[in-house]
Amino acid sequence: MNARDAYPHFQTITTRWKDNDIYGHVNNVEYYSYFDTVINTWLIREAGLDIHGGDSIGVCAESHCRFLDSLTFPDCVDAGLRVSRIGNSSVRYEIGLFRAGSDRPAAEGWFVHVFVDRAERRPLAIAPPMRAALQQLLRADGEQR
Amino acid sequence: MNARDAYPHFQTITTRWKDNDIYGHVNNVEYYSYFDTVINTWLIREAGLDIHGGDSIGVCAESHCRFLDSLTFPDCVDAGLRVSRIGNSSVRYEIGLFRAGSDRPAAEGWFVHVFVDRAERRPLAIAPPMRAALQQLLRADGEQR
Amino acid sequence: MNARDAYPHFQTITTRWKDNDIYGHVNNVEYYSYFDTVINTWLIREAGLDIHGGDSIGVCAESHCRFLDSLTFPDCVDAGLRVSRIGNSSVRYEIGLFRAGSDRPAAEGWFVHVFVDRAERRPLAIAPPMRAALQQLLRADGEQR
Amino acid sequence: MNARDAYPHFQTITTRWKDNDIYGHVNNVEYYSYFDTVINTWLIREAGLDIHGGDSIGVCAESHCRFLDSLTFPDCVDAGLRVSRIGNSSVRYEIGLFRAGSDRPAAEGWFVHVFVDRAERRPLAIAPPMRAALQQLLRADGEQR
Repeated sequence: MNARDAYPHFQTITTRWKDNDIYGHVNNVEYYSYFDTVINTWLIREAGLDIHGGDSIGVCAESHCRFLDSLTFPDCVDAGLRVSRIGNSSVRYEIGLFRAGSDRPAAEGWFVHVFVDRAERRPLAIAPPMRAALQQLLRADGEQR
Repeated sequence: MNARDAYPHFQTITTRWKDNDIYGHVNNVEYYSYFDTVINTWLIREAGLDIHGGDSIGVCAESHCRFLDSLTFPDCVDAGLRVSRIGNSSVRYEIGLFRAGSDRPAAEGWFVHVFVDRAERRPLAIAPPMRAALQQLLRADGEQR
Repeated sequence: MNARDAYPHFQTITTRWKDNDIYGHVNNVEYYSYFDTVINTWLIREAGLDIHGGDSIGVCAESHCRFLDSLTFPDCVDAGLRVSRIGNSSVRYEIGLFRAGSDRPAAEGWFVHVFVDRAERRPLAIAPPMRAALQQLLRADGEQR
Repeated sequence: MNARDAYPHFQTITTRWKDNDIYGHVNNVEYYSYFDTVINTWLIREAGLDIHGGDSIGVCAESHCRFLDSLTFPDCVDAGLRVSRIGNSSVRYEIGLFRAGSDRPAAEGWFVHVFVDRAERRPLAIAPPMRAALQQLLRADGEQR
């Protein structure tokens, strides 16, 4: 279980009324929408991803989440992000979700993007500027394979 | 069309990756989730609504939205809220959604809550403390009916 | 309040676990996703809308819903659709949502699409084949304006 | 990769307009909502789960998905379900999602429920009638641990 300092990047995400399910906490599915959101916001703002017209788009190949504690609307969620592996066309991210004010994660997960060309959906090598940006999120104890 | 100063209360909501639909902007349905979120967050924090165990719950009776401009992930949305009418058991809210930095609304809508008892779902008079809180959001040119 | 026979077209939609909110019924926001779904499924299958590459796309200009009764996961929802007005570039739909087996609507709403060109988002006249298809959903007591 | 005959139970789920993301296919997050839906619909209908008032509720402890092919609105999705392990208070399900008409999965995943008491959220032994129902979904090559 990783504390906040394991993550070099954070984004605060507001929960929504409809995130709470019938049991009164955020539905498990929404945790993955927080993953998606912290990753893509960072890619757009810091790594040059153009989701509207760029040739290269990131498609999810695999994801995983371990649920450790409840999140509840109207909490804010701090989503921590790091990169654990950068391949030729794929990236593996690790995400920790923390309730505002807590250093114990409510969930931990990982998410693999494969970058493909928009038209044909075939794998594309990650371009040097995006690769350089991603390397800034490689965790200290990680290694590039 | 109302500018920001028509709304006494604002909440900033982060958009999510999956809010964007195939046409590249936030799907119309999500605008209503922003309405729901600004209203309920305010009710919980400022008006004593207890969504987990309170006897009185707010149920949506009617809602409406006019879409004036696009919102797009990863924009933040500033949701403005005011109250236009307080009845015996119902409240009518008016909401304006603004892209961060813009004074022109991307959407305007209204939303009617009926407060009912949790078990039987029959209308309940709004309790005096919640009524007092709601009155603080009554727009200047409004009147209580 | 309209019974099922007011609608010339129906689609059955499966509810999802996360549609239920903390109060144990389908969240008001999801009703609008049922509207969106019955309309666009019909446009794609019956009226030639190409959401992936067509020049003309339908953008929501305004929508409304009156909530009459609860829907609850795992109910199925029968969404009834008719057209109440066809303009030069816009269409107004009316939707009724019925719990499977019930002739009393759980909700009634309307939804206005403006057709625009995909690139510039400027209004486009509805092409004759789509107009002909839409006319088949005009309600008997409607009139084209 | 498992074909349809690996799953003893199937539910057909209608996709929704807003499931499609900006890249024109169903967003990865929604795949998990299909998992949630096939599991809970089955538990309610076949295994006596009472989501509104029962003492025992199922909380997601961990989930995973491998994305093999795109799903696209307005496709229907056939969600296949089996059980791979039944513990004292937990169940591990395996899910395959198939586009209507295809025998090749668009995604495969697993999902772990822990049953807890509604009030305190402490693990509860699975009651005999639910256990008996779950055993009917144990895959042929599985074993109860």
